[in-house]
Amino acid sequence: MSVLQEISPNVKQMRQLEYALLVRQAIRIREDLKQGMRKPYKDVIEVCWGDPQGTGMKPLSFVRQVLAACLYPQLVNSDKLPVDVRQRAQRLRQECCGGSVGSYTATRGIPEIVHRVSEFITRRDGGAPSHPENIYISPGSQWALTNMLKILVNSESSTRTGVLTPVPCHCTTTLSIEGLGAVVVPYYLSEKQGWELQVEELHRALESAKGLCNPVALYVINPGNPSGQVQSRKSMQEVIRFVLEKKLFLLADEVYQDCVYGENCEFLSYKRVLAEMGPPLSDSVELASFHSVSKGYMGECGLRGGYVELVNLDPTVMEHIYTMFSKDSCAPVLGQMALDLMTNPPQPGDPSYPLYDVEKRHIRNTLVCNLKKARAVLNSLPGFCCQPVEGGLFVFPRLHLPPKAIQKAKEVGMEPDTFYCSMLLEEAGVFVSPGCEYGQKEGTLHIRIVLTTPQDVMEELLKRLTSFHTQFMKDFS
Amino acid sequence: MSVLQEISPNVKQMRQLEYALLVRQAIRIREDLKQGMRKPYKDVIEVCWGDPQGTGMKPLSFVRQVLAACLYPQLVNSDKLPVDVRQRAQRLRQECCGGSVGSYTATRGIPEIVHRVSEFITRRDGGAPSHPENIYISPGSQWALTNMLKILVNSESSTRTGVLTPVPCHCTTTLSIEGLGAVVVPYYLSEKQGWELQVEELHRALESAKGLCNPVALYVINPGNPSGQVQSRKSMQEVIRFVLEKKLFLLADEVYQDCVYGENCEFLSYKRVLAEMGPPLSDSVELASFHSVSKGYMGECGLRGGYVELVNLDPTVMEHIYTMFSKDSCAPVLGQMALDLMTNPPQPGDPSYPLYDVEKRHIRNTLVCNLKKARAVLNSLPGFCCQPVEGGLFVFPRLHLPPKAIQKAKEVGMEPDTFYCSMLLEEAGVFVSPGCEYGQKEGTLHIRIVLTTPQDVMEELLKRLTSFHTQFMKDFS
Repeated sequence: MSVLQEISPNVKQMRQLEYALLVRQAIRIREDLKQGMRKPYKDVIEVCWGDPQGTGMKPLSFVRQVLAACLYPQLVNSDKLPVDVRQRAQRLRQECCGGSVGSYTATRGIPEIVHRVSEFITRRDGGAPSHPENIYISPGSQWALTNMLKILVNSESSTRTGVLTPVPCHCTTTLSIEGLGAVVVPYYLSEKQGWELQVEELHRALESAKGLCNPVALYVINPGNPSGQVQSRKSMQEVIRFVLEKKLFLLADEVYQDCVYGENCEFLSYKRVLAEMGPPLSDSVELASFHSVSKGYMGECGLRGGYVELVNLDPTVMEHIYTMFSKDSCAPVLGQMALDLMTNPPQPGDPSYPLYDVEKRHIRNTLVCNLKKARAVLNSLPGFCCQPVEGGLFVFPRLHLPPKAIQKAKEVGMEPDTFYCSMLLEEAGVFVSPGCEYGQKEGTLHIRIVLTTPQDVMEELLKRLTSFHTQFMKDFS
Repeated sequence: MSVLQEISPNVKQMRQLEYALLVRQAIRIREDLKQGMRKPYKDVIEVCWGDPQGTGMKPLSFVRQVLAACLYPQLVNSDKLPVDVRQRAQRLRQECCGGSVGSYTATRGIPEIVHRVSEFITRRDGGAPSHPENIYISPGSQWALTNMLKILVNSESSTRTGVLTPVPCHCTTTLSIEGLGAVVVPYYLSEKQGWELQVEELHRALESAKGLCNPVALYVINPGNPSGQVQSRKSMQEVIRFVLEKKLFLLADEVYQDCVYGENCEFLSYKRVLAEMGPPLSDSVELASFHSVSKGYMGECGLRGGYVELVNLDPTVMEHIYTMFSKDSCAPVLGQMALDLMTNPPQPGDPSYPLYDVEKRHIRNTLVCNLKKARAVLNSLPGFCCQPVEGGLFVFPRLHLPPKAIQKAKEVGMEPDTFYCSMLLEEAGVFVSPGCEYGQKEGTLHIRIVLTTPQDVMEELLKRLTSFHTQFMKDFS
């Protein structure tokens, strides 16, 4: 007997990830190395997850000091910690129920933190007003996105709900959509134009959904993951006009907003661009904008903190959203506090500022150097072509494989890029993720490499990749 | 225009909580007090949430020391911390990717922690085997429960999915069920028998669902919230036979397992009772058992850590469950670590043990004393009747209100017990929650009081309640 034989069709609909195969392979290789088995490498360089600290980035000392003092208040009296750290910890702790990070918080998050996050948004967006009651702190942005999708997906309608989603796109979002029984309506970013979002393509995608599903929302991620593209104001304005015209809800994933490297490139939030377009647009487009402590310079994925800001939503809908979020208790308190520290970092003159500034610059510098080296090496290798990367934490080069390699992949029952990644992992101990996990235009192949390693690790990685790739192309030519 | 005018009927189905009204009232009163307005009390005593630290319980020093040292590893070198704390932190940190609590973990949680949790379960359950691959660490037990419900609820079937749920029951579970478009099938605990779960009532409830929905699961919470009842082995065996016979999945919420005070009372997990019933039962009943760091002696709600252990699930279903959990990244790393510390606390001989033991005894003693006092006072007041409480963190006395009070409540558009709670809050500054939030037998009324306050706060609370109640009963007699 199995009660669960008839499990929810929504859950069944979720793809099993190809990652799983590579993850098992990596575990096996590590075990082999531990047992002393000889390989052409000493360790596995894992650059497949968007996990800055997991790939070697150091946390910001200020953040860790404040959070440690919040957890164990005796540290507030320690003269080993800078005075602004101790004051900050003292204040944050007092904002918790019972003065403890071990208590639940209000549904939206600790009210004082929510308030300061809204002030940060207003500053960031050149004064466009932000209201605390429109903000929900959550255990990561992806979690808030899933909650918003739950609101948008009508599971009782005979026509499935559709969500326009970029290709390529990181797979947690597409899994969430599928897991709710909704349909991913793909729109393709234009690789040749540096993965630009083109509004004609949105029209085509929407048209393609006719008769198949009822599209209610457009999901954008800016700066892009894995594409690394940063949208211009003009492009965003076009998107805003499009969603208004087509009556779509706009889901703006902006978790890489601190990571912009491109010359003449600037991160603009959808909230800001919308506000600056003025009425009637600024009063009518329904928007949810997401941010997180997991990416950027903090890279605190393990703390689980993010937020969503909602714009122009109907008050009755806002009530349902409150109920929705309240059922999951609250976001982890330390994640909430990390969000406060991210949006209100030390300022010049604060005792912690000099170290904070040095550490932040070091992280930025590492990212910029890794990106430069990675693109240079990739573009020098036959078969690779890497578009300019303006932001984010990844390179996502196109990979042209010889027909023999594609044939071989077919024989072993793998996607061609998964086959390439599997070989790279086995022979060079480099664990990158295959393009098929993100979606890609029919007939194209890619890999994604995470840039958040220390510089020496990135050099070693590129060395191993170069020699593996050269041999691979020779073997399959 | 509102894209969301047609929001998901599942979300619309979720009740707005009566809490919301009382929460707003409490905020207003606190604001009044801050502005210097004179009231018969200086502060609001808030005992409506199951939030030990929020109501004044102190965290365990050992837990906070280890976690602070994990966050800020420089502390590992501090001679202010006991050596076992530093060793523990060192080890936990090394078990993280990149040696940092800021990185993602595997879907099930940090493998070493999952392994140690499974060893804890085996010890707890008298040797009944537990396997790490059946355990998922999650941001709180409720979250894992919701994921299991997602698997169980077939949203595409024309007949709604039903879940047998106790009355009374804390409302996060009923909200989760409703939020997924499923139906709560109530079974009533027998108040007169100390809120006993009676299997004939399960039969009645199941029968009552005929034609209305398709019941697939039975949810039990043991020890009970808010009931405080602890199930006997015999009662659990009956439940197990019932679910087998009726082909129901068993959802066992066991988050209060450390809080048992009743004489001749012992917590037994469903996993253990099932295993000890032997085959074929022990091989066939499908069970999910939940535990958490939020309750018990740790009371670390703010860290968000819990787990589910799955028993006898089909391997193909287990694959879908893996996919399901993997879409939400991972549980907060510090919550995972807290779970490790809860399931593997200091042992006699460890430097941290004496303080840990004193603190734990103090918490237990506080709970036992508060419970004793609360029951004595409540049962001495006309109109109150409080059953014996064997476990958990609450008293849930029945409240008999005079007809005039019930009439008045009707006039102001409130449930009678919400009206009572609102008056108690306004006039005595005591914030308890009304029975209607938990469900109660037609015509009965209750309030829930949380026991995790310091003893002097509980005394003050009972003094205020006594004088308020006496006046209230006089006014409405």
